[in-house]
Amino acid sequence: MRPGIGVSPGNVPVYYGGGHLKAVERRVKVAEVVLRWVIFGLGVLAAALVASDTQVTNIFSLEKKAKFTDMKALVFLVIANAIAAGYSLIQGLRCAVSMIKGSVLFDKALALVIFSCDQVMAYVTLAAVAAAAQSAVLGEFGQSELQWMKLCNLYRRFCSRVGEGILSSFVVSLGMVSLSGLSAFNLFRLFGNNKGKTRG
Amino acid sequence: MRPGIGVSPGNVPVYYGGGHLKAVERRVKVAEVVLRWVIFGLGVLAAALVASDTQVTNIFSLEKKAKFTDMKALVFLVIANAIAAGYSLIQGLRCAVSMIKGSVLFDKALALVIFSCDQVMAYVTLAAVAAAAQSAVLGEFGQSELQWMKLCNLYRRFCSRVGEGILSSFVVSLGMVSLSGLSAFNLFRLFGNNKGKTRG
Repeated sequence: MRPGIGVSPGNVPVYYGGGHLKAVERRVKVAEVVLRWVIFGLGVLAAALVASDTQVTNIFSLEKKAKFTDMKALVFLVIANAIAAGYSLIQGLRCAVSMIKGSVLFDKALALVIFSCDQVMAYVTLAAVAAAAQSAVLGEFGQSELQWMKLCNLYRRFCSRVGEGILSSFVVSLGMVSLSGLSAFNLFRLFGNNKGKTRG
Repeated sequence: MRPGIGVSPGNVPVYYGGGHLKAVERRVKVAEVVLRWVIFGLGVLAAALVASDTQVTNIFSLEKKAKFTDMKALVFLVIANAIAAGYSLIQGLRCAVSMIKGSVLFDKALALVIFSCDQVMAYVTLAAVAAAAQSAVLGEFGQSELQWMKLCNLYRRFCSRVGEGILSSFVVSLGMVSLSGLSAFNLFRLFGNNKGKTRG
């Protein structure tokens, strides 16, 4: 770090000798902020689509109402997406503030926390999508060997809404997986910058 | 790196000035090799438990046979665990060889590949467990709102075997998550060692 650039604790302005690395890092930063806001939007969309989804159908003159709480996997999906959206909002704001300030994350502990949180969110959203997709497949096709009848022919509109919600959540989980990769990159960068001065 | 220690491409003997870091790295290495072999064992166990599981029951004088292929999620679970076990076997052998040789991973590209593979395996095994667990919950408790009856009262032995398989797979996925963490640590260590010589 050159003296006189103005160091603030945690955040310091970017300075690198190599212009190439600087360009890569700028791109990573833009990708991170875009991904965080896309995940926020899609997370809210997925949670809203599934949570607000209901359909009333008459089966043999019996009125039946389908709602997302009928299936535990969908409840888990809504909760996971709500958490992912909330988390991405906070992180998106952090990224936006650091972009406006023109500063770059330089705190190892914070970078490690962000990487760990991104990992946890990636695991949670992926597990939620997998469980919900399994339920959706059962709803759509049934499982004749187990006498579980398909239901989506009865609740067409309900099922397509859930399908859109699952698709949206899938993109959210892929986004969280990508963000984990970006956060890992940020962490490597920090370890590469500050350590190893006495070695080589 | 001190001269005269004998550098081989990719693998070089451990040398660090700090005894503390060396001890930490040795512990990480032991943890890695133990985890890889535990995952191999539990992955094989989970795949074998679920794949070999069948039960024949009489329902209203009709002979019905339950097998894991009746449920797509269980097929996915078996495949995921088989892949995880095969992958862990290869990695376990690599770790064992490097321990016997007393060498330490020093190739950044290889470390990055291992980290990425561990991440993919963690995501895949976790998704498989989530989907299978969702199926298991439906089998155990049914979903009365959807007219899906519980089946595990009919196939008690089948279901407990599947349950054991899922539990084993869950430990496998937790192990893969932990290994991702260890591989990330290994990668940080490498970036810390070789880079940043011109910075600080």
